[in-house]
Amino acid sequence: MPKAETPLDFHPDPALAEPLYQQLGNALRNAIRQGRLRVGERLPSERDYAAQLGLSRTTVTAAYQELKDQGLLRGYVGRGVIVMASDTDQAQAGAVPWPQLGARLTRHAPPAGPRRASGDIPLSDGWLSPELVPRAALAASAARAASAVANVGSAAPPQGLPALRAALATSLTEQGTRVAPDELLITGGAQQGLNVLARALLGPGDVALVESPCWHGAFRAFRAAGADVVGVPMDHEGMDPDALEDALVRVRPKLLYLIPTLQCPTGRVMGLERRRRVLQLCERFRTPIVESHVYGDLVFGASPPSLKKLDPAGLVIQQGSASKSISPALRLGWLAAPREALSLLVAAKASLDLSTPALTQAVLADFLASGGHQRHLARLRGELEGRRDLLVRALSRHCPSLRFALPAGGPYLWAAVPAGLSGQEVEAAAALEGVSVRGGEAFLPEQGASGHIRLCYASPDAGQLAEAADRLGRALRRLRSQPPASGDAGAALAWV
Amino acid sequence: MPKAETPLDFHPDPALAEPLYQQLGNALRNAIRQGRLRVGERLPSERDYAAQLGLSRTTVTAAYQELKDQGLLRGYVGRGVIVMASDTDQAQAGAVPWPQLGARLTRHAPPAGPRRASGDIPLSDGWLSPELVPRAALAASAARAASAVANVGSAAPPQGLPALRAALATSLTEQGTRVAPDELLITGGAQQGLNVLARALLGPGDVALVESPCWHGAFRAFRAAGADVVGVPMDHEGMDPDALEDALVRVRPKLLYLIPTLQCPTGRVMGLERRRRVLQLCERFRTPIVESHVYGDLVFGASPPSLKKLDPAGLVIQQGSASKSISPALRLGWLAAPREALSLLVAAKASLDLSTPALTQAVLADFLASGGHQRHLARLRGELEGRRDLLVRALSRHCPSLRFALPAGGPYLWAAVPAGLSGQEVEAAAALEGVSVRGGEAFLPEQGASGHIRLCYASPDAGQLAEAADRLGRALRRLRSQPPASGDAGAALAWV
Repeated sequence: MPKAETPLDFHPDPALAEPLYQQLGNALRNAIRQGRLRVGERLPSERDYAAQLGLSRTTVTAAYQELKDQGLLRGYVGRGVIVMASDTDQAQAGAVPWPQLGARLTRHAPPAGPRRASGDIPLSDGWLSPELVPRAALAASAARAASAVANVGSAAPPQGLPALRAALATSLTEQGTRVAPDELLITGGAQQGLNVLARALLGPGDVALVESPCWHGAFRAFRAAGADVVGVPMDHEGMDPDALEDALVRVRPKLLYLIPTLQCPTGRVMGLERRRRVLQLCERFRTPIVESHVYGDLVFGASPPSLKKLDPAGLVIQQGSASKSISPALRLGWLAAPREALSLLVAAKASLDLSTPALTQAVLADFLASGGHQRHLARLRGELEGRRDLLVRALSRHCPSLRFALPAGGPYLWAAVPAGLSGQEVEAAAALEGVSVRGGEAFLPEQGASGHIRLCYASPDAGQLAEAADRLGRALRRLRSQPPASGDAGAALAWV
Repeated sequence: MPKAETPLDFHPDPALAEPLYQQLGNALRNAIRQGRLRVGERLPSERDYAAQLGLSRTTVTAAYQELKDQGLLRGYVGRGVIVMASDTDQAQAGAVPWPQLGARLTRHAPPAGPRRASGDIPLSDGWLSPELVPRAALAASAARAASAVANVGSAAPPQGLPALRAALATSLTEQGTRVAPDELLITGGAQQGLNVLARALLGPGDVALVESPCWHGAFRAFRAAGADVVGVPMDHEGMDPDALEDALVRVRPKLLYLIPTLQCPTGRVMGLERRRRVLQLCERFRTPIVESHVYGDLVFGASPPSLKKLDPAGLVIQQGSASKSISPALRLGWLAAPREALSLLVAAKASLDLSTPALTQAVLADFLASGGHQRHLARLRGELEGRRDLLVRALSRHCPSLRFALPAGGPYLWAAVPAGLSGQEVEAAAALEGVSVRGGEAFLPEQGASGHIRLCYASPDAGQLAEAADRLGRALRRLRSQPPASGDAGAALAWV
């Protein structure tokens, strides 16, 4: 507990009519009222304080007693005299300083997203626009799920509704990844899955490796568990395996998180040989791999096998999600994990929210069992590919200064902005022109500037993509003809 | 990085035919294969190691080089020589040691619950049994919610569906607590609300005050955020305010969590004067209060006003839940917080799972708006009171050695077990007789034995309560006539 400094400045004046103990009492009272002495602070012992001020001990005792009688101080055996504050101070204290209490949270928050106005075209989100969602089929599944009273009457088990785990196991196994229902944990979207993993496997002093750049919800979840996060550089094919080996040696991570297929935010796909190399390295170091496969169904052409499918040693926990390929409204994801890891993951899930709603799980189970899933995915890939082509043509016309690789699938296009500009500057300028994009800074696990922006062509209406590129082009031209903006779009705490 | 100790024990023998560098290489290889030198470990520099062993530097260099050629070691500029392991080790290493990786999680876990067999009568859970849930009304609400495609097509905002926040604000305000829709955050049950609060307001080095005993999901969530948890003793009326004042001075908590109305696990209700005193103390110390009000609608008689209603200074964040009074299947709770705290709480919620499903929120909004809520609560209170009376009569007959106060509402009865027995012992013995109860140890924020058990009369069928008491009585008689059991019912990681 910090020693009080201010009251030690008190200079007694024996020439005054006021007794010395009252002079001291008033000085202490003022220090408390003015906040120089805070509630809970400890004062010097009577003996020490008397010696420091050159006063008798009875003078200090009398001053303390007066303030104790007023409720300003209180003595505790063995802990000395503590400031308790007075009724007037109580009235002044008033509200709790909430923003200061949350300083730790906001320090780890990603940069605020662009402030949205109505009429803005959203290229910054990662959500599917409603017309890409099989809404009619899901509404039919929801109507069937609603008719079973158990789905509104009984909590699902923490591991997830057996019917959904069975349907997912069948679906995953049909696609070549053998998973049993008891190797699956249902989560509230992939984001909750990241928090489950963090709570199960990470703690203060641990290190998690991630791609740099990567999904900010991942490093946010890992840091919330007290872990440090170290970014591993990427090239055109994803995480650099030499840099990974170096990091495995150097930081001894407790887990590696990566998105080998259609990485967020870059859209890159890791080739087969590199996947094998990553597995070998992590096997040698016995480092668990969290493979996010949430975009795995969205590759336009042929897709390399997932790490989970290639994993001979039971290293890989694979994350899946309904949000990116079926519907973001269901808030359903899952972890496919080695059986020995399941009880840990279920305990972590239970400590987060006990269980996931039965109703939404029953809706997805019904949708998967009703047989339209693969048809829907084929249609969705076609729609996304068409949107990609629309956006690419429009960017070539309106934003010739952007450089990017053609996305091989998924919802994202990752573009390098012209030299001398930062992603955040472009984000801010675009917001002023009525189009929201995400500066690459949001995805950096370490602080720093980014020369990229992420554009999501899945979230707006397809008909808005050309106009979005036109607005973005205006923002880029304006930036190149003007001195750099402050980079602050005045945004509040935001997410996605 | 720890220095390797084992290979320094190597004693070279010049009399052997094997060259010294090979002797040293073999010793290191064995140390690696046997796990005495672990992957990632750093070896001494060639110069230092030569000096320690009394060998020439070229001997050490040659030994290191041989192991480098075999892939067992690797040199890093500026970081020395690191153990990398070999192909044989890779094969041996195999799976990840998941249980060890999760040691931190399980250390903070509450004691495992009783192992359940089919036919057991569940008095250990806190869930409502299905017949206490207004299933027909909820199924009708679910059918209406399912017919709106937005509820299966678009993610709800992180703060919650506006329709649900509006319905809750109306409901809370009608019951006398003025809350606006923008002062509400929807959470995945009250348990997720605890994790939201922990992430927003707590971090390593912080302290949270709780009642002792209290709901273990609370101290688990607070510890997962890195905070320390300190329990404040209770008496028949809940948290002891003198002990609270002492703790506020002593540990300077970042928040106080309590359940003033029908506390879990004790069922106690704090009186009006004590509520005012708690508020005054926390106001003086500017300590935020998290008031769990999840049992607030379940008081059989008159109920004192909530802390939130009495709060003049904006200190109180109130937690509510649909799980204890409407349905546990919806997994819906909420936080009613001062407006200045909302953006922090929403950011923490988003980092946990982005948002809560739209569908379940729409179901609850429809149920609240359809007008049957107060009728349902009146019926539920009547049912619970009838079950309480059934259980109390049966306990008086079959378990005369238990001592308890008559619960004034809610689902729990908190009973003192006979002197000399612990709650965990009774839990284990009861499981053998086919009835699950919860030993009080699960609810202690500090380690220690408990002389209590918690019985939940809401979770089994009403018709099973007499039989449950009969089985519990057999368990108690058996314990008193036998030497103490080990207390280990062989349970796995469990929750609730």
